[in-house]
Amino acid sequence: MIRVFLFTMKKIALLGATGSIGTNTVDVVTAYPELFQIVSLTFHSNSEKGAALIKQLKPRYVGVGSERIKKELGDRFPEVEFGVGEEGLIKAATLEEVDVVLTAVTGSVGLNPTMAAIEAGKDIALANKETLVMAGKWVMEAAKKNNVSILPVDSEHSAIFQCLDGQAQGNLKELVITASGGSFRDLTRVELESVTLEQALNHPNWSMGKKITIDSSTMMNKGLEVIEAHWLFGTDYDKIKVVLHKESIVHSMIVFTDGAYLAQLGPSDMREPIQYALTYPTRLPIKNERAFDLTQIGQLNFEPMDYDRFPMLALAFYVGKKGGAYPTVYNAANEVAANSFIDGKISYLQIEHFVQQAVENYQETTEVTLKEVIEIDKQTRTIVERWIKEEGRL
Amino acid sequence: MIRVFLFTMKKIALLGATGSIGTNTVDVVTAYPELFQIVSLTFHSNSEKGAALIKQLKPRYVGVGSERIKKELGDRFPEVEFGVGEEGLIKAATLEEVDVVLTAVTGSVGLNPTMAAIEAGKDIALANKETLVMAGKWVMEAAKKNNVSILPVDSEHSAIFQCLDGQAQGNLKELVITASGGSFRDLTRVELESVTLEQALNHPNWSMGKKITIDSSTMMNKGLEVIEAHWLFGTDYDKIKVVLHKESIVHSMIVFTDGAYLAQLGPSDMREPIQYALTYPTRLPIKNERAFDLTQIGQLNFEPMDYDRFPMLALAFYVGKKGGAYPTVYNAANEVAANSFIDGKISYLQIEHFVQQAVENYQETTEVTLKEVIEIDKQTRTIVERWIKEEGRL
Repeated sequence: MIRVFLFTMKKIALLGATGSIGTNTVDVVTAYPELFQIVSLTFHSNSEKGAALIKQLKPRYVGVGSERIKKELGDRFPEVEFGVGEEGLIKAATLEEVDVVLTAVTGSVGLNPTMAAIEAGKDIALANKETLVMAGKWVMEAAKKNNVSILPVDSEHSAIFQCLDGQAQGNLKELVITASGGSFRDLTRVELESVTLEQALNHPNWSMGKKITIDSSTMMNKGLEVIEAHWLFGTDYDKIKVVLHKESIVHSMIVFTDGAYLAQLGPSDMREPIQYALTYPTRLPIKNERAFDLTQIGQLNFEPMDYDRFPMLALAFYVGKKGGAYPTVYNAANEVAANSFIDGKISYLQIEHFVQQAVENYQETTEVTLKEVIEIDKQTRTIVERWIKEEGRL
Repeated sequence: MIRVFLFTMKKIALLGATGSIGTNTVDVVTAYPELFQIVSLTFHSNSEKGAALIKQLKPRYVGVGSERIKKELGDRFPEVEFGVGEEGLIKAATLEEVDVVLTAVTGSVGLNPTMAAIEAGKDIALANKETLVMAGKWVMEAAKKNNVSILPVDSEHSAIFQCLDGQAQGNLKELVITASGGSFRDLTRVELESVTLEQALNHPNWSMGKKITIDSSTMMNKGLEVIEAHWLFGTDYDKIKVVLHKESIVHSMIVFTDGAYLAQLGPSDMREPIQYALTYPTRLPIKNERAFDLTQIGQLNFEPMDYDRFPMLALAFYVGKKGGAYPTVYNAANEVAANSFIDGKISYLQIEHFVQQAVENYQETTEVTLKEVIEIDKQTRTIVERWIKEEGRL
């Protein structure tokens, strides 16, 4: 069965415009000016890049990270309305004319604006993993209630979404998420003890932001993706597998009940999943597409995942199955720990140490509310920050 | 978008029941006796296996290859109605109660029964490439007119069908058919001069009938698949690519306009595409499924296709683009030549020689009718048989 669709101009709110996903989104949007318009955008602190984007894209509304930036840019762009912090994010995401919100902010800050956008009936192109990790249950419920689509932007989830699309219900057996293994995939646990930030930031396949590159090397990023996939596709954790695939060419796969696999593959170019989230179910050529020839790549390798080598991934399944605020604790502890490693406050293996300690330290006895989850997120950060201050760099 | 379907008991006509696809189909059907029933079957000459199938499956109607077999089995199975030759094939395919016809006969003999079944409103699970190679234009027109589904059984076409299903129209850029390379993929043209039948029948990945194994080694089989894909999916020849993939794990792929690939992969087990053609759009577990672990396979290799090494494949694109009866000449010449090689009448490279000579010898100036195509098929066979008699084994 083949479906026919028409495409109409889409008005976009871009949350996190100056980061890696934000930059790729701007590339996609400006390649098709007749199809896409960015009516609002936000960024945290990179006011130079932010100002350039305002000049280029002429958004009506801009959310920024501080009153100082609002003042500075407000003087330069008097025709633009500015907002600050979470209020700015929420306003940008819920403007009357917005059709779809692309949430490319990093960390738990993405949650409230995404929920507000869903309640305002906006479709969500989701590049912020933490939203579903922390609040998957509530986000998916709200999306269903408001008849809103959650379109994945992560290459792995977009791959699964592309494979699943149009398939009959009940045919799915398993999701298979591929993992490049990150910067340190060939190092042993002992060798990991002395790695530097510079080494960690040298990802073999993808050029991304600092935090996500660190998360790739610890496999924390893959752990967050497992939890994200659970919510996005309503798939039990027992049906989510991870395989090591060094080339990052197969972006992920699904397995059907009859044993057949569908795999989505292509170049490591984030513009593809971003554009697909914006054009779905239509597809358009990627402007200045990267050359991709499978026979030149020649070889695709697949290895079993080593959960002892990558304990953060094993922990993802543990917290995911526990449910409640466990994934929130796992994510919040990692955000603090990974950023502390980036800031030189702790050593590489201390990231894992603090995440494990935070999960072990957490006890949940009754069902939590979304409000409590947000509170537990804050508490976890405070606790892990205190631990890092006390224990310091080993 | 996810679709929901119910599955009802399917009554099947199995044409070519004793061959490799026939045997696999019987496996699939008997694994789900509550879902499938073979109400009619045909076979050509293997009366021992045919008798066993009649005992096992209790079909109401059986088509056989000769009056002798009809007589022999008619006495043993008085409750079964028998028919002979093309008449038997057509009757088996068009019985009132038949829902779907699985055409697993080899060669051009599949064409008329398939056309009759389509005109009787039966869905077609197509394992007989020659039907579309010879008469793709008329078969697809008739299927459309009679609102009949043509469901591919070939692993490559099933893979493409599975990838395309549910995708929006206009998103397709290319089909990529994978080729194992057959028994002689690592031999040079010079080395091919002295290969034996026994060597040719030793296919590295698939256990199949003799003729198709020879066709795999000459890449004639891939050529027929290219032409089949053109008709089945309505895809221009310029948008059909072939890549060498020795492992036969990726059964074929599609490329979208945005550069993303979808690939269907799995074990080399014909039961999967057969069952899918019968259960589509539902899927069911394969009974006694073969273990399949991508991380155990470890590595998938892709190489560009060498059209000088495999001239039959280059010729497929040539005759395909020429259209008319050119593909029929190409196929008919190969049927005679490949069978003559199997019978020891010609050497291996003479297969290609006679196919090329037949295509070069053919001239088409006006548009042909289906009746003329069938006539040209017969003429080509006569001519190539005469050449073989005259030139003999080199």
